[in-house]
Amino acid sequence: MIIRPATPADHASISRIVLPVIRAGETYALDRGMSEEAALAYWCGADRFTSVAQAHDGAILGTYYLRQNQQGGGAHVANCGYMTAPDATGKGIARTMCLHSLSEARRRGFRAMQFNFVVSSNTRAVGLWKSLGFAEVGCLPLAFDHPLLGFVDALVMFRTLEMEPAPGTA
Amino acid sequence: MIIRPATPADHASISRIVLPVIRAGETYALDRGMSEEAALAYWCGADRFTSVAQAHDGAILGTYYLRQNQQGGGAHVANCGYMTAPDATGKGIARTMCLHSLSEARRRGFRAMQFNFVVSSNTRAVGLWKSLGFAEVGCLPLAFDHPLLGFVDALVMFRTLEMEPAPGTA
Repeated sequence: MIIRPATPADHASISRIVLPVIRAGETYALDRGMSEEAALAYWCGADRFTSVAQAHDGAILGTYYLRQNQQGGGAHVANCGYMTAPDATGKGIARTMCLHSLSEARRRGFRAMQFNFVVSSNTRAVGLWKSLGFAEVGCLPLAFDHPLLGFVDALVMFRTLEMEPAPGTA
Repeated sequence: MIIRPATPADHASISRIVLPVIRAGETYALDRGMSEEAALAYWCGADRFTSVAQAHDGAILGTYYLRQNQQGGGAHVANCGYMTAPDATGKGIARTMCLHSLSEARRRGFRAMQFNFVVSSNTRAVGLWKSLGFAEVGCLPLAFDHPLLGFVDALVMFRTLEMEPAPGTA
């Protein structure tokens, strides 16, 4: 699998990943009924850098975006969103994309990464982000209306991008 | 003082309030160099309800916006921003605007209000929001690059809009 920048030629593949997640409405605070055009405008907007994870056979297995989370004095903190194709979950694709995004954010000079709204019932994502060094720095009480579970908390997760010491250094 | 919806005729007054705050760069995560046009597009955008606080002599003393903080499953939480004219601070205008915004948010059916990014060094604002029932539900470590203080924390603040029991009810 490689991770590479998305191009307009990837839009159909991105839609096939993003739309079912939006329609389910269980993990992203986006309008479940938004059009494909609006979903692509969101995911591939001019304010963000969008990538795809591509298998050796050419299939697009996942996609993520990276953007500045705030302007001005908050411009040193990145924000990302990740989605994996429904038939490709459980294979470490989100983990690989997140590691890629952390490197990419560092390369672009960001000093930290923040997830603004991790739905607490999405325990797989919460566990994955924690395993990748993100701390839960905030809890938004009942801030997400889950279509099956009703109101659940959303978490704010954060990690710095300071370089870790290389193995063997003090 | 009355609080009323902003109209295009208020834009010059709103600019006189908003631009110095943006240029100072100490309290909002916005680009300090943004144009007046961009500042007005932000503050009075189609996605938000913008009000002004007007003195009896007609002077505009403050302005605030109210919007949905997230889409979809997060659409029941409101978000606001408030700014007071430089020569009108310390007179309770922000408090009056916040109380107005809480009522307005309730009237529009929101169930909670969230401030995403309260700069921790803005202690007057932090104290005011706490006095109005907001809790600090998150702390974004060193997420704001203050032009004088360097990197400081930003706070996430939140309160429900559940109706308080009327006096005398159990």
